[in-house]
Amino acid sequence: MTLRALVYTDEDVTEYDDLAAAKLANGTTWVRADDPDEATLETLHEVFDIHPLAVEDVGNDVRPKVEEFPAHLFVLAKAARLRHGDTTFEKEIDDRPVGLFIGTDWLVTLTFHSLDVLDAVQESVLREDPRVLGRGPDFTAYRVLDRIVDNYFQQLDQIEDRLEYVEEEVLETPEREILEEINDARRELLAMRKLLWPTRDSISTLARGDSPQIQESTEKYYRDVYDHLVQQVDLVETYRELAIGARDIYMNSLSMSTNEVMKRLTIVATIVLPLTLIVGVFGMNFETMPELTWPTAYPAALLGMAGISGVLVYYFRKVGWL
Amino acid sequence: MTLRALVYTDEDVTEYDDLAAAKLANGTTWVRADDPDEATLETLHEVFDIHPLAVEDVGNDVRPKVEEFPAHLFVLAKAARLRHGDTTFEKEIDDRPVGLFIGTDWLVTLTFHSLDVLDAVQESVLREDPRVLGRGPDFTAYRVLDRIVDNYFQQLDQIEDRLEYVEEEVLETPEREILEEINDARRELLAMRKLLWPTRDSISTLARGDSPQIQESTEKYYRDVYDHLVQQVDLVETYRELAIGARDIYMNSLSMSTNEVMKRLTIVATIVLPLTLIVGVFGMNFETMPELTWPTAYPAALLGMAGISGVLVYYFRKVGWL
Amino acid sequence: MTLRALVYTDEDVTEYDDLAAAKLANGTTWVRADDPDEATLETLHEVFDIHPLAVEDVGNDVRPKVEEFPAHLFVLAKAARLRHGDTTFEKEIDDRPVGLFIGTDWLVTLTFHSLDVLDAVQESVLREDPRVLGRGPDFTAYRVLDRIVDNYFQQLDQIEDRLEYVEEEVLETPEREILEEINDARRELLAMRKLLWPTRDSISTLARGDSPQIQESTEKYYRDVYDHLVQQVDLVETYRELAIGARDIYMNSLSMSTNEVMKRLTIVATIVLPLTLIVGVFGMNFETMPELTWPTAYPAALLGMAGISGVLVYYFRKVGWL
Amino acid sequence: MTLRALVYTDEDVTEYDDLAAAKLANGTTWVRADDPDEATLETLHEVFDIHPLAVEDVGNDVRPKVEEFPAHLFVLAKAARLRHGDTTFEKEIDDRPVGLFIGTDWLVTLTFHSLDVLDAVQESVLREDPRVLGRGPDFTAYRVLDRIVDNYFQQLDQIEDRLEYVEEEVLETPEREILEEINDARRELLAMRKLLWPTRDSISTLARGDSPQIQESTEKYYRDVYDHLVQQVDLVETYRELAIGARDIYMNSLSMSTNEVMKRLTIVATIVLPLTLIVGVFGMNFETMPELTWPTAYPAALLGMAGISGVLVYYFRKVGWL
Amino acid sequence: MTLRALVYTDEDVTEYDDLAAAKLANGTTWVRADDPDEATLETLHEVFDIHPLAVEDVGNDVRPKVEEFPAHLFVLAKAARLRHGDTTFEKEIDDRPVGLFIGTDWLVTLTFHSLDVLDAVQESVLREDPRVLGRGPDFTAYRVLDRIVDNYFQQLDQIEDRLEYVEEEVLETPEREILEEINDARRELLAMRKLLWPTRDSISTLARGDSPQIQESTEKYYRDVYDHLVQQVDLVETYRELAIGARDIYMNSLSMSTNEVMKRLTIVATIVLPLTLIVGVFGMNFETMPELTWPTAYPAALLGMAGISGVLVYYFRKVGWL
Repeated sequence: MTLRALVYTDEDVTEYDDLAAAKLANGTTWVRADDPDEATLETLHEVFDIHPLAVEDVGNDVRPKVEEFPAHLFVLAKAARLRHGDTTFEKEIDDRPVGLFIGTDWLVTLTFHSLDVLDAVQESVLREDPRVLGRGPDFTAYRVLDRIVDNYFQQLDQIEDRLEYVEEEVLETPEREILEEINDARRELLAMRKLLWPTRDSISTLARGDSPQIQESTEKYYRDVYDHLVQQVDLVETYRELAIGARDIYMNSLSMSTNEVMKRLTIVATIVLPLTLIVGVFGMNFETMPELTWPTAYPAALLGMAGISGVLVYYFRKVGWL
Repeated sequence: MTLRALVYTDEDVTEYDDLAAAKLANGTTWVRADDPDEATLETLHEVFDIHPLAVEDVGNDVRPKVEEFPAHLFVLAKAARLRHGDTTFEKEIDDRPVGLFIGTDWLVTLTFHSLDVLDAVQESVLREDPRVLGRGPDFTAYRVLDRIVDNYFQQLDQIEDRLEYVEEEVLETPEREILEEINDARRELLAMRKLLWPTRDSISTLARGDSPQIQESTEKYYRDVYDHLVQQVDLVETYRELAIGARDIYMNSLSMSTNEVMKRLTIVATIVLPLTLIVGVFGMNFETMPELTWPTAYPAALLGMAGISGVLVYYFRKVGWL
Repeated sequence: MTLRALVYTDEDVTEYDDLAAAKLANGTTWVRADDPDEATLETLHEVFDIHPLAVEDVGNDVRPKVEEFPAHLFVLAKAARLRHGDTTFEKEIDDRPVGLFIGTDWLVTLTFHSLDVLDAVQESVLREDPRVLGRGPDFTAYRVLDRIVDNYFQQLDQIEDRLEYVEEEVLETPEREILEEINDARRELLAMRKLLWPTRDSISTLARGDSPQIQESTEKYYRDVYDHLVQQVDLVETYRELAIGARDIYMNSLSMSTNEVMKRLTIVATIVLPLTLIVGVFGMNFETMPELTWPTAYPAALLGMAGISGVLVYYFRKVGWL
Repeated sequence: MTLRALVYTDEDVTEYDDLAAAKLANGTTWVRADDPDEATLETLHEVFDIHPLAVEDVGNDVRPKVEEFPAHLFVLAKAARLRHGDTTFEKEIDDRPVGLFIGTDWLVTLTFHSLDVLDAVQESVLREDPRVLGRGPDFTAYRVLDRIVDNYFQQLDQIEDRLEYVEEEVLETPEREILEEINDARRELLAMRKLLWPTRDSISTLARGDSPQIQESTEKYYRDVYDHLVQQVDLVETYRELAIGARDIYMNSLSMSTNEVMKRLTIVATIVLPLTLIVGVFGMNFETMPELTWPTAYPAALLGMAGISGVLVYYFRKVGWL
Repeated sequence: MTLRALVYTDEDVTEYDDLAAAKLANGTTWVRADDPDEATLETLHEVFDIHPLAVEDVGNDVRPKVEEFPAHLFVLAKAARLRHGDTTFEKEIDDRPVGLFIGTDWLVTLTFHSLDVLDAVQESVLREDPRVLGRGPDFTAYRVLDRIVDNYFQQLDQIEDRLEYVEEEVLETPEREILEEINDARRELLAMRKLLWPTRDSISTLARGDSPQIQESTEKYYRDVYDHLVQQVDLVETYRELAIGARDIYMNSLSMSTNEVMKRLTIVATIVLPLTLIVGVFGMNFETMPELTWPTAYPAALLGMAGISGVLVYYFRKVGWL
């Protein structure tokens, strides 16, 4: 459990122990609650009026969303990492929800997981640029959301790599494993889409400027995050079409292979069976088969058979089977 | 038939026999009518102005919905259980409609089936927490709806189990039975979707706070139920895609199997037929076949044939058919 | 041609000959015009201001719809019966349009076909319950529409029966006839959908209560018809998915059958061809083949061949081909 | 190039040479400009304020649309004829755009093709019923549009004929030519849809009565055209489904044919190969084969082989392969 | 890096070095910034209040869009060229974003690529028709956008050529390469759609006339560009359907080829195997085979075999296999 309350006053950031005092302090307050215990949640409820149902939403597997509460805006986002599980029902994505509660001059971030993006933003606030916090809780929330959304690109890159591998392999060897790779990619894209769509809709709400908690000057930044999400949704759709295209090629490779196998069988049978018939004829036991006594009949028969083979091979070459 | 009228006054729950008295009594009234007879329905109509068409809706197979009546809100929900019927037209889902009539300070629940969820909520009102009823008829209705919707997760879990089984089996043995399993899952998902979509839309209406019968403080709870339904609709869509993916793998397994069968046939034919031709040659009855008299010709011929077989086997191994 | 004008006054129904007088008479008037001639249409135009374009719509194959005219509401509905025509372009559905013109205190029904539902409603008005007419022209129109929509369920039942038959047969015998049955069902569903969608939209307009001709107390009844239509649209969608599922199973049965055929061929060839090779070897005419003179060679050869067959049969059993 | 200006005054139609005079004349003016030269276009621009961009739209391949200009309404419609081109990129449809500019008391029709429908309407105005023009420019425009839309039915009939032919043939002979017919039909439907959708939307705008140039009494007529277009869009969708159904049957016929071919091969091989093995056995050269000396062995062997054939034929009949 | 500031005053165009002066100068100003350095961007920010986020959008791969800024309108468009890359992830389209910032009497175009269309428009402003600039910044922006959109037609033409090639080839030779061509076309169409849809939506915003920066007289021109984009989107959809149709024919060609191969095999086997059986019979070593001693038996047997072959060939011709 970590609980830190940072307050930006007069160009500097101070850390408070008491949440109520932090809230009252002049300037923007950021309370970061990672994996808080029951008592802390109780305090958050008392001081910031954070509703137990919202806390539950952060704890469970609920879709990203934005909700208006009387005194603050509740944004639920999810950091995501692909998991490449072996079976379908190990989830394809390891998603870690984080709740952002944006008040007039305070921001509470709440999560039950460990989240790199929060560390990164805190770092930049404490060391590099305390003015981030000074630009308001909505701007600090933007920083967190921006990093979360940027990370989605990495997950999409992994899916792209997988599809690239599939596209190369599928033309060489139509193995079943390729079909499984394709299905994995489709499932991951399904999971990404499930994540991206509601996030895009939420951020769109924030970018439209209906919420009093979002300053007009910050809207532009949310619009930027929104543009990234639109682009990611586009990528997901494109990858889905690519996956379907790859599956088509795979299925076709299989049909093509069966076709090839059949051709070989037909070539062998068409060349060998008639020759077998001929040798069968000369193996018959009729008493009166004058050709059997001719001295040159045997080599002639062999030559004839070679000739027939040659003609057939030539024919198969001409129609492109050999 | 069961008919109970519970009234919450001054921190306690009293049971009334007379419906009209129960309605007039101070505090929230909950009338639970399970499988009522005609006379009871008549009384409900007189006391609570419950419209015969609404009663018919509860009795028949109508989609879940919310309807505004002059003096109350009519919510039609359906408890559901998967039935795994053998044929399609035994319905996949055993759904049990329940009508919730939410007035200003009274709630009537009406059903023609036996419903565990009503027993459970009544239990909690009578024994554990009478204040549930004290929070208003809309909150009590939320409790019923919440349990109904929570149960849907169990049905979805069963479908997930079925798909998990299918995904494991389909790679081993492409039997027709697997295809039937997949089709069963698709039908069940169809049935679940038919149930979930209108329920989601109904609850969304309640969560939006347009109805005077829903208090502002209760809306959050309906929003919670709504979130569950959205998640369930998501699950259904994901499972549908998984079912389609499994069907693709199945269909492909079959093509693959045909391909394998053809390869074996081709291998056998390609190895055996030329050898048969050779032995046929030496079985011909030409008088002048000098090799027939050579003492080492027979073992040489056998060795040659073994050599040809070996070359062909080596070739088939190289191209990966053996 | 039939033309009847019924007027409900003081608890009883009187029949009028003169349309104008019928319209002016106190109480609700219902004019029923079945297959009217030009003169009657002219009179209807003069007395009730029924527009020639609306009459044309009733006569032609136009989609069901609702249209507002200055003095009345025009509802176009269609009674339907499946036709099971042999070819596609004999239409799948025999639909009989009926126009309902709803004025303030009069209703004109106009059709160019014979329609059981009109007879049935007239019967109930004349004999059983004249008050039906007393409740207003909108209520009488509801009665007609309700019966038309109820009849759709019978058509859907027929399609269900057909699909049930298909589902049973498709697992037994993948004959082409099954595919044609499936395609017939799909076409019928297409036709039903084309009928149901616009009807649903029309009735929805009436149920919403925007039309001054529909009394508030009647809206509930239209909402009931609307619910039936929604349910029918749902059924059509479900049946479509079932039909697609059945087609998948059918297509798969065919692939499966090809697979089986190939397996048999492979089994026969794999067992018989090597044996033929062996007997061919012992049929060669080399002079020096010592085994030919051994007395036990022949039975030994036969035994060996039986052994090889046995091993192959055992192998095919083990891999599940036999 | 044709340019005619018809003015309807006092129950009769006069022809004017001067466009400006025609516009100013009392009564409704119809200017018909077929394939006009630059000078005429310039005059049209000056007198009727027809925008060069609108003229360009009429000249190019732009989607049907309605546009409001300050002094008139611009309706772009397209007469269409199927072309049955041999390759895809000869366009499937020969569409001839016509621009209708509807002013307060004037109508300009502009086209760069020869259009039968304009001749037909002009004929009816000049000879049969000059009052058509008297009912206003919007009514005259309706007459033109009505004929254009009516002609679409003929094109759809041709597509229906093609599909009817396909449905009959596909069951007889699954030739590739059928697949090309189906693809042609699909492309034509695609082209028709591209034409019908925007036309429907345009006419819907006119029928809704938002445009001041459309009189209230004319709206009904536009609604009639709209209904036809809705019906045509429905037909296109139905035909598309039929085309897909036909393609399914075709693809299936092919699989069925392969299946049949395989069955025949398997029958031949299963009957002949074992018999060949038997005769091979009796063709072996072992010295001790007592049965060879039995006098009845030969006919017995032949009988036995016939018996085996009989049993196999009986078996193949029983499983339905013969 | 290029930076030019053109100002149109009194029928002529002057070039300014100082951006601030150019902005203040009487008349319309066009600042063209190609691949500007940081300092220039800073100046643009100061003088024209161009937001860094907008500059970033021009630099990155963001979807085309329109955004309102306090003092100007920001239009992001993309010039595009097909790239025909070998692998999927070399992007199919080389798109070059250009930002157009439209103020009250100034236009800034910003790009980080070299763009022919900007050169072309500048040429026409400087040499042919300075009044283009005189008609306002929105008209000049229209000129740029119009050329960009017109170029899309060239890209679509290339895709059409590719599909035309595919349609011709697919009937001749169902090679895998054709399937890859089809997939390439589908990917390019995907990329074009991704470009066209948002551009269409942006231009639609401009054509609707909500932006104060777009004069009413210019709207018509934007509507023209919009019509082109609608047509291009239509083309993309049509090409997609054609690509799918071609793929169907391809897949079918493959099945057809397998079918043909199987038929040949069956023909060979059906003709040769029975004859082999016959010669095998006469090769048996039974002592009592009277026909062996008949002098005409041998030619009779050969004739009989020829007869059987003839009958079978005739039969195969009749069923259309030969």
